[in-house]
This record gives sequence, structure tokens and C-alpha cells, in this order.
Amino acid sequence: MQERKGRQEEYMKIICEGIELSDAVLKVAKACSTKTTNPILECVKITAENDSITLIATDGEIAIQRKIKADVLEEGAICVPGKFFSDFIKKLENEQITLATEDGRVIITYADSESSMQLLNADDFPAIDANIGEKKVELLTKDLKELIAKTTFCCAQDDSRPVLKGVLVQTQEGRICFTALDGYRMAVCRKNILGMTGDIKIICPGRTLNEIGRMLGADEDRIEIFVQKNMLMVSIDDTVLTSRLYEGEFVNVSNIVPKEFTSEIVVEKEALDESVERAAVLARTDKNSIVTFDIREGSMGVSSNTMIGRVNESVKIMLEGKDVQIALNCKYVSECLNAATDETVRIGFNGAVAPCVLTPAEGDSYLYLILPVRTTA
Amino acid sequence: MQERKGRQEEYMKIICEGIELSDAVLKVAKACSTKTTNPILECVKITAENDSITLIATDGEIAIQRKIKADVLEEGAICVPGKFFSDFIKKLENEQITLATEDGRVIITYADSESSMQLLNADDFPAIDANIGEKKVELLTKDLKELIAKTTFCCAQDDSRPVLKGVLVQTQEGRICFTALDGYRMAVCRKNILGMTGDIKIICPGRTLNEIGRMLGADEDRIEIFVQKNMLMVSIDDTVLTSRLYEGEFVNVSNIVPKEFTSEIVVEKEALDESVERAAVLARTDKNSIVTFDIREGSMGVSSNTMIGRVNESVKIMLEGKDVQIALNCKYVSECLNAATDETVRIGFNGAVAPCVLTPAEGDSYLYLILPVRTTA
Repeated sequence: MQERKGRQEEYMKIICEGIELSDAVLKVAKACSTKTTNPILECVKITAENDSITLIATDGEIAIQRKIKADVLEEGAICVPGKFFSDFIKKLENEQITLATEDGRVIITYADSESSMQLLNADDFPAIDANIGEKKVELLTKDLKELIAKTTFCCAQDDSRPVLKGVLVQTQEGRICFTALDGYRMAVCRKNILGMTGDIKIICPGRTLNEIGRMLGADEDRIEIFVQKNMLMVSIDDTVLTSRLYEGEFVNVSNIVPKEFTSEIVVEKEALDESVERAAVLARTDKNSIVTFDIREGSMGVSSNTMIGRVNESVKIMLEGKDVQIALNCKYVSECLNAATDETVRIGFNGAVAPCVLTPAEGDSYLYLILPVRTTA
Repeated sequence: MQERKGRQEEYMKIICEGIELSDAVLKVAKACSTKTTNPILECVKITAENDSITLIATDGEIAIQRKIKADVLEEGAICVPGKFFSDFIKKLENEQITLATEDGRVIITYADSESSMQLLNADDFPAIDANIGEKKVELLTKDLKELIAKTTFCCAQDDSRPVLKGVLVQTQEGRICFTALDGYRMAVCRKNILGMTGDIKIICPGRTLNEIGRMLGADEDRIEIFVQKNMLMVSIDDTVLTSRLYEGEFVNVSNIVPKEFTSEIVVEKEALDESVERAAVLARTDKNSIVTFDIREGSMGVSSNTMIGRVNESVKIMLEGKDVQIALNCKYVSECLNAATDETVRIGFNGAVAPCVLTPAEGDSYLYLILPVRTTA
């Protein structure tokens, strides 16, 4: 063993089922970096110990690991190129596979065939600490799905204020609240929790939440989110995802949402969504993508007007307060309406230049705030 | 009427069902040009006459038209922007729609709403002659599907020899034969025909055939292909596609296919395909994308060797003739194997530098010829 360490080489030999290896590689390889100058972040690390192997990949922010059963003939760790190993093993689902190191390569033996891949140095792979358990919050899987689906699309996409690429996740009075904003619109969603140890207030990357969303299982399952310092961890069906959290201050959102409105409407979501979608067909051809709401007693006009043509529709509403005209980016309106899950929604306005706020007709389980577009017309 | 003509304006007024208009627009808009400097080729022309409207679009090469029932209140013709009209009408499937011209626009009235789009001058729309019937060939829909699927992927993709972007379609002794080649490989497929008037020998754009392939209906339906001068026409369920044909001489392919081979193998297609796919995972990382066949009595080696690793598999074969080693582009081999529909295929070789030929184990219903890659090794 000492001689081996002296040669800085990696040893490992295992036998496992192709279907299990393939499933595990596909799951963890999602965390491989696709645009990096550091090749180790494109790798999957395979560690053989006792009677199992653990696969892990990370892009430096998110790490995903999964343990599967294997005959371990020689314990050790190797780093294989993630994409190629994953593409290759995917095509060996019906075979029993032997992985064995030899001269800096891994020899992959299956059926009558023997292939090989170059290895990277497993010592260069970043250490991933999945021992995260200081604080915990537990909720229903379907509620976490909804929290993610209703907020992450409002995260900023560019790097100008990195903290806005994250979602503010905090527990408050027996509920968990997700908040995302990009400077033009904001999403807030709240759900009851089943239990917790210690209040949580973190900024979690939107990407991390979307990746968790894709991993989530049956709606009625319980899911635990663990937090410690600047790390988060969830474990779903033997797949463990850990993620760095963003440090720094999130925008103080407590004063952003107006408490009162000069105009408030209740409208059938589907009807408004369809009108906005049609207006958007033309609005999208213009760089401002403006859809205009002309709100009056009993009905609202939904219109767009571009070089190619104009859409002018009428949607039934119930109005409390003053008539109002407002110009909004049709993409933001469409995305909020698509994320809303109630048949009727309430939208509050304070004139043409103040943000409008969309909520369910009853309750405060979610909220969207959209800044209007200032038009010169 | 004379005054109207004097003003060069278009008049038309019709009422129709959204579901029918939407279906028709979606079908014909496929022929709209997406990259043109001539805006009229991005349009759908709608002509109202008697008790129906005819929609037509063309990119200058392919034209698709479809006639649907409508209440024609005023006969005439208009040109609407294809993509926007199509996207918009698609969202009005449940409505009754009125189209009426006014001041160079079309007013679209539905439910309580009224929208409009700018029109282009219908007189600028190219004349499309669907009166094509000099020659005719009739075959089963499933046979035409197979002819298209087995050949068009071998058409040249670039413009260096435009005629190679087409498929040579010719009738011979009660059969129809499709031939496509791109300078590196060739596909030939033959099917029986049900009837014909006059022998056909045309070069049909691969795009046209792929578009026809997408329109084709039930396998057992009969389909007629009409040809006149440099035009082709098919009519499927009231949708009529016409296309220009390529003029010029196709490559003389009669001497390309070798009649005899020094080595001939019979191999299970699926097993070879899977091995080639795995070899391709690594081969694709290299610009030559080489998979090597090492053919010996009883088995063939399928291998690829790149910086990242090597794949080395063994596939059972029956060999007649000499051992042979040959290097091929894995993409060409994969695509041919995927298009082949027999469980076992025959591949003939004449050494390492001559083209190899893949056919069904029995019969000559299709054939692929692939040029080897010359390796310096």
C-alpha cells in the first residue's frame, strides 16, 4: 500500500450491474460542470468501500452523490470523464460491468468486450461534506414542488447582482416562505411546514432548487431540507444533493409590497391568460413587449399594438376602486398567470406607474409583483 | 369594382371556424420561408371564392395549399404574415372567426374582441400552378414513407453541388427507386408501385420529400405522385403540396456500386448497431469520428481509440472471403444501421480503401454504400 501511494496511482476494482450503475451515473452527472476550465469538475468520482460504490459529481456549487451496491474487489477511488462515462454506461444497461484500474486508465469489462477511459487524479476532486444537519425543516414534497415552481422563474438570470440568482428561503411562524426577484418582478410563495429545528433564513441558488425539483418524488412523501452554515442538503431515494448557499444580504422586500390599492380586480385566470397570450403573439415582435390593460367597471381591455398589427380584447372583471390603464411586459404577466394555480386571481393597482400585485382571489399563499413599463405615449 | 382596382386595395370578408382555420394555417405555414429577404415568402395567402377559402404558402421551392369551408361574404385575396397569423389563430381554436379587410389591414373578429394585422399586397404573391398531371406514379403510403426514411438523410446538406441536396427518383420495371448521395455515402431504396402513367426520372429536393413524409397518412392508403416538367405534386387529405424539381444531371450511380466483394459478412443488425453506438461515444470526440472494423472468421472487432479512451468490442459474424480491416466514419455507419429495417444485414468489402456496401441479408430493397476513411496509421 505504501509503495502504491508513493506512485500516486489510483487502484480500484469493482463489479456491478449496468442498470444500477447507469441510473446512478445519469443522476449524479447532472451536477457535472458543462462550462469550466477545470476538467476535474467535468468528472464523476467513484469511491469503492465495503460493499458499495459512491458516485459523486460537482460543478463547485451543487454536488450530487449516490451510493449503489457492488462487489468491491479492491477499495479505492477514481475520477472518470462524466459525460463520456455516462453516455457509454447508458448503453450497457443489460450487462454486468467490471471496473478496474490499470496504468492511469479504468478498464471497463462487459460481455466479451473490454474498453477503457483515461482517469483524472481523484485527489484533485473537491472534498464534499454531506454532513450537514445543524438545522432542519420538513415539509410535504408537493408543497416543495409548488414553492419551487412558483418562484424560481423570477430569479435574475444575469450575474450583475449574484444574490438575485438565488431564492430567499425563510421560516416564519410555522410556515416556509420563498422569495425571488429580478428587479422587474417578484415572486413570493408560502407553505405550511411539518416540523423544524431552528429558524432558517438562507439564499439558495435558483439552479439548486430547480435541480431538487427535478429529483422530487411522490407528492405525499415528506422531504427534509438540512442547512448548516452556508450549505444545504437534501436526500431523495438514496441520492444526496448538497449545495453552497449565497452569502450576502438579500433585498429587503418587506416594504416593496403595497398594503393598499386604488384599484383592485378579480378576474378568471384562464380567460385573462388566453387574452394575454394572444396579445403577446404580436407584442413579442416589439422589444418592449408591451401588453396594455385598460381597466373599467365590468371589463378590462387587453391590447398590444405593433407594426405588424394590433390585438384588442375584452375580459370580464369585477373592479373595486378607480379605472386604471397600465402597460406591462407581456412575458412577466404570462409567466405569473401560468404559475398561478387558482381559477380566479386578484390583481391590485396603484395607478399606471406603481407596481401591480397578483394574488389568489382568497388567501396569501402566493404573490407576484410586476413593475409597469413606462411608456412615452 | 373598377374603382377598387384603381386603388390597388384588397377586399375580402369571410366567416369560418377557428379550429378549421387554425388547422389549415398550421399545415400550410410549414412552407413559409424562415430566412428570406422577400417578405411575401413569409406570408400565407388566403383566397375566398364561392363557399370556401384556400390558404397557400410558399418559400419559392415548396408550396402547400389547403381549402376549407367558409361563409364568403366578399370574394377576394389577402396576404397575412404567416408566422404571426398562425401563432395567433392557433389560440382561437374554440371561436368563430370573421376576417374582413379594411384600410390595408385584416380585421379579425372573434367573441367580443377585434384584432388586426397588416396585409401585404396579394398581387405580389408568386403564382402557384397546382395543375400538374402529365405523369403519375401510385404506391402504398407505407412504401413511400420507407423510401423517404431510408434515403433523404444521405442527401448533401451544403450547397456546393445543389443537385446532391435532391433525391434521384426514377421508375424502373414496375418499381420506384430513390437514390441519395453526399460524396461520402449513398443510399438506394426500391419499392413496388401500384400503377403509373409514363416513366419518371426526376431529382426531388430532399426537403420536399421530408415535408411529404410528415404529411403522409395511414400506411395502407394509396398515394399518387404527379409530375409535369420540373414540378411535382401530391395531394393528401385536401392538403396539396407542390414543389420545384432540381434541373441538371444527377451523378451517374450505375457504376458506383461494386458487383463483387473480396469479403462479405452477415451480422445481426442490433448487436452491431449497439457496439458502433458505444464506439461512437468516444469516436465523436475526435474530428474524424473513426470506428474501425477488424473482420475475421467468426467475429469482428468494433473499436474506437481517442485521447479520452478506447472502446474494443467483439460482434459475432459469418464471413465469406478474406479478413479485412477498415476505418469508417461512425456517424455514417450508425445512420445506415438505424435506417436498415432487417434483423440481419449483409456488408460487402473490397479491402480497406474501397467503399463497403450494406444490404438486407436477403434481397435488394435497399442498399447503403459508405466510403472508408483513409488513416495514416
